[in-house]
Amino acid sequence: MSIIVQKFGGTSVATLERMKSVQKKVMAARAKGYKVLVVLSAMAGETNRLLALANEWSANPDPAETDVLVATGEQCSIALFAMLLKDSGVKARSLLAHQIPIYTDDSYGRARIHGIESGTLENLFNHYDVLVAAGFQGKDHKGRITTLGRGGSDTSAVALASALGSVECEIYTDVEGVYTTDPNMCKDARKISHISYDEMLEMASMGAKVLEIRSVEFAKKYDVPVHVRSTFSDNVGTLVTKENKIMEHVLVSSIAYDKDQARVTLRSVPDTPGVAAKIFSPLADAGIVVDMIVQNPSRDGVTDMTFTTPRKDIKKTIAIAEDICKKLGGNAELTYDLNVAKVSAIGVGMRNHSGVAAIAFAALQKENINIMMISTSEIKISILIEEKYIELAVRTLHDMFIGTADKIVCDETNYN
Amino acid sequence: MSIIVQKFGGTSVATLERMKSVQKKVMAARAKGYKVLVVLSAMAGETNRLLALANEWSANPDPAETDVLVATGEQCSIALFAMLLKDSGVKARSLLAHQIPIYTDDSYGRARIHGIESGTLENLFNHYDVLVAAGFQGKDHKGRITTLGRGGSDTSAVALASALGSVECEIYTDVEGVYTTDPNMCKDARKISHISYDEMLEMASMGAKVLEIRSVEFAKKYDVPVHVRSTFSDNVGTLVTKENKIMEHVLVSSIAYDKDQARVTLRSVPDTPGVAAKIFSPLADAGIVVDMIVQNPSRDGVTDMTFTTPRKDIKKTIAIAEDICKKLGGNAELTYDLNVAKVSAIGVGMRNHSGVAAIAFAALQKENINIMMISTSEIKISILIEEKYIELAVRTLHDMFIGTADKIVCDETNYN
Repeated sequence: MSIIVQKFGGTSVATLERMKSVQKKVMAARAKGYKVLVVLSAMAGETNRLLALANEWSANPDPAETDVLVATGEQCSIALFAMLLKDSGVKARSLLAHQIPIYTDDSYGRARIHGIESGTLENLFNHYDVLVAAGFQGKDHKGRITTLGRGGSDTSAVALASALGSVECEIYTDVEGVYTTDPNMCKDARKISHISYDEMLEMASMGAKVLEIRSVEFAKKYDVPVHVRSTFSDNVGTLVTKENKIMEHVLVSSIAYDKDQARVTLRSVPDTPGVAAKIFSPLADAGIVVDMIVQNPSRDGVTDMTFTTPRKDIKKTIAIAEDICKKLGGNAELTYDLNVAKVSAIGVGMRNHSGVAAIAFAALQKENINIMMISTSEIKISILIEEKYIELAVRTLHDMFIGTADKIVCDETNYN
Repeated sequence: MSIIVQKFGGTSVATLERMKSVQKKVMAARAKGYKVLVVLSAMAGETNRLLALANEWSANPDPAETDVLVATGEQCSIALFAMLLKDSGVKARSLLAHQIPIYTDDSYGRARIHGIESGTLENLFNHYDVLVAAGFQGKDHKGRITTLGRGGSDTSAVALASALGSVECEIYTDVEGVYTTDPNMCKDARKISHISYDEMLEMASMGAKVLEIRSVEFAKKYDVPVHVRSTFSDNVGTLVTKENKIMEHVLVSSIAYDKDQARVTLRSVPDTPGVAAKIFSPLADAGIVVDMIVQNPSRDGVTDMTFTTPRKDIKKTIAIAEDICKKLGGNAELTYDLNVAKVSAIGVGMRNHSGVAAIAFAALQKENINIMMISTSEIKISILIEEKYIELAVRTLHDMFIGTADKIVCDETNYN
């Protein structure tokens, strides 16, 4: 039997009317002869409502009990959707994570999937044409309910698709797919038809919230083709797969940005061995994610150390950094800046081409945008600039690398 | 270890403030050295909200999926309450029915408990002091979620108490216990301290909605002492146990009534063998509960047949009865009356005393209340009267059998 996995997010199941759109997608897959495993999130707003309840009840809600509470969101979705399907005469039933089971570790609220009992699903598909599984949740070795954290339903879907050897994992959302950049920021943004796991990972970590990053890691690890598409249209969306020759022809596939950046500089710190560890270990211990780091060349035995963190962590970061300055002694002093943002060019094609960075810098400088920090990976260049220039920077790099006149190579390929 | 079961209904867990009252009850039992198994219902109104959702989604909601949906109500209650306990430093956790498991048949929406894996609970009590179990739900042999029907949490509590050999099953509610009659109808009504399972069964079936009838049957079968008491006071409530000598000294322990009665009469039906079956079989087939039945003495080969049904079923009953009249032929004709009500005197003491019925009739006739129908069991006399006399009838019988001046014998006994 040929199985397809279809995952629908909270906005797609928020109302009866929208669930009927979801039903159409499922029926279309049935009409093509597929057995369908539907994975659903909680109705939009429901998880937040339940978390608010937990926070009303407790100043510090027990994580295991919070999972028992929020897992009811998906439970409602799958029951209601299975009812709809049965009303239409489809052989369908709902499945909770513990009924499969989907095994996870016991990190309540952010559990990781360890394994899936795919035999249960295969047996059930002998009796049912559509199985409606709860996303976002699992069961630990003690039999307790766990949840996978925000966006976890994507990961559930990919993991189930992998366990079942599904032909494709369709992730339905309220956008048409993955875009070359944010369409709200750049009118020339357009849908990408093919993108590699690695490019998607770089985009996801930049805050392009189409796919949850862990689901992409999972898809990459088990080579599950993921098709990101819209619940509310029949258009083909974006296929996320392993890298192929066509993708390599494209230098830059997308321009991402992140406004949630704060820059912190420790000036005139003693340039002694191990100074970096002295600065960044306490931050790591406090759970603060440091993104970009630049160390200026030493002069007179002192150096400047600059890094970026998410803005929400800035207070905690400053407190720790002040403490570090005191401990380092000398004239070490602290400055920070919240009016910064990061723009990135991403593309697997960069691996085989040098000079992408130089082109990007030149393009930004031509617009008088000052480059504050730079970080690069094999397939990404990130540049920190003043926040007020972020739209201009995104448009400039999009124009430069992706353009308007011609579609990029991979965008002309129809993979169906 | 000594285990006590405490069950709290929907009104007791409806708000954070009320759950704190519940918490006090649990802490008090802990202070006495008990391990506590708490059984919770869904927050008041939640089950109805979920059922309304199901009916919005489907004209005829699938029963199995409806159970998946409504079972989330108790799941929320137990998670929130376990959080409260953990915040107070109590070693506690929530337990869903499938985690115990509580096994039931697969009659979704009205499942019956087949068995409970008490070993799981005993093991957990080695690590936890309080276990917070979801009432109302179970798991069938296919691993699917089931629910026990309205008031099922009482049954869950009694079944768990039985499985654990619990010293007592406390059913907390928003009233102080079981009363000799409805206090809203008779100012002399007072709390009963001891009542037998059989008396409670007769009261429950009369619509005295303190305890769900199936839970009383369960308690009787497995001899579980049930203590009905208030969440919102510390007063001792009503203990429901097997019959004892003290109870037998009390002729009538309570006066119950039921306004949900409609009287139907088939006049001049041919008095032939099997005519009763011809009338009542089609009603039974339609799921209509017939309560009291009276057949008048035959004259000229015809007889009158009168019975009562719940008022909600009257339309369906009339339709079927008209059809029966036609089939019976002759001059059979149909009348019905919605302005009737039933008053009952209940007491295990009746078993050993004759003449209770005669005293009751005389008392009612003295008040000029016409007796329309009568039915009796070993421990109950029920009398159908015009609805407008129901308050007067309740007060009259309460005065006659239970009185005001002296407390009845068993009410003076303190069983603690």
